[in-house]
Amino acid sequence: MPIYTCTTARDTLSGDDKATLAGEITRIHSEINHVPSTYVNVIFNELPTDAVYTDAKPSRPLLITGWVRDGHPEAETTRLATEVAAAATRVTGIPAERVLVVFESSPAHYAVEGGRVLPAPGEEAAWIAAAGH
Amino acid sequence: MPIYTCTTARDTLSGDDKATLAGEITRIHSEINHVPSTYVNVIFNELPTDAVYTDAKPSRPLLITGWVRDGHPEAETTRLATEVAAAATRVTGIPAERVLVVFESSPAHYAVEGGRVLPAPGEEAAWIAAAGH
Amino acid sequence: MPIYTCTTARDTLSGDDKATLAGEITRIHSEINHVPSTYVNVIFNELPTDAVYTDAKPSRPLLITGWVRDGHPEAETTRLATEVAAAATRVTGIPAERVLVVFESSPAHYAVEGGRVLPAPGEEAAWIAAAGH
Repeated sequence: MPIYTCTTARDTLSGDDKATLAGEITRIHSEINHVPSTYVNVIFNELPTDAVYTDAKPSRPLLITGWVRDGHPEAETTRLATEVAAAATRVTGIPAERVLVVFESSPAHYAVEGGRVLPAPGEEAAWIAAAGH
Repeated sequence: MPIYTCTTARDTLSGDDKATLAGEITRIHSEINHVPSTYVNVIFNELPTDAVYTDAKPSRPLLITGWVRDGHPEAETTRLATEVAAAATRVTGIPAERVLVVFESSPAHYAVEGGRVLPAPGEEAAWIAAAGH
Repeated sequence: MPIYTCTTARDTLSGDDKATLAGEITRIHSEINHVPSTYVNVIFNELPTDAVYTDAKPSRPLLITGWVRDGHPEAETTRLATEVAAAATRVTGIPAERVLVVFESSPAHYAVEGGRVLPAPGEEAAWIAAAGH
């Protein structure tokens, strides 16, 4: 259900960094938002060094944007952002000052997976059972 | 007006898949949201195989995110997601279980095209006429 | 705090175009949204020519999506979109008809930077002072 996009300048992250960070994001998301880990997607968008700017200068931030369904308690989304940001620094060594985590959300019924409209938060169990997973 | 971003691991889609899927998304969007096809943008973000994870393992999903203007009937956005997801499987052969379609929306007046603020849903005709298209 | 993503077909923009456009977006955002330029991120996603479609045909648009915190006056977000779109054409020479600028927003407390939850619009000064910048 969720999609996390991690954007960096190329060669900022090693292959191990990516695999480990994907694992941490998946674990954190699954715990806080009560979604089986099999539904958590994490992608890395690694761009040329002349394609990433902060303060109008080439830079090496780690920008993580996540999409979640509307209806989770807002404090849990804040906790998700805080824990994902901490994991990003812990895994990659990139200082917190260069790590930005942002969540966007939209209604569950604006999304389809496995051919079916996503369940609202709190209704995952019935939805997953019906999928036969 | 709309932007569709299709994210996959590299070599998941052929050139033909991309052209055909762009065509189907454009047709579906144009019909359901009453926007001339000339305004529909579809992009493909094809990432290295070590940059796409599901359940913390390298994976080959097809993740489609779309942006639309606020104010369309919600049921039509659900229908849009359902039809785009079905087209994605039909065109690419990727099973529905690996296809996720998500819409996000924001106010039409948060967007500019052709130098002009976008019209709210329902006001496209006057806006397009004024563009001289 | 903000993230701007500029998507084009490869070789649409020169290195100079990118640096100059990043500078203009940073200046405009900083002025209108009262955010120090050090917090403005601009990235360029340059895709193969068979990965960008408008009206179901390969195309060369400049698609700029920006994320901002909820709570800015809506008219200022409209002004931001208008000025960023004008700068894009001025810097790159791409006609306004092929430039689309879209803002999305979510609550400031859905985002973390420097290890801290972002401030709501209007509360930047105290947040920045506490950061020791």
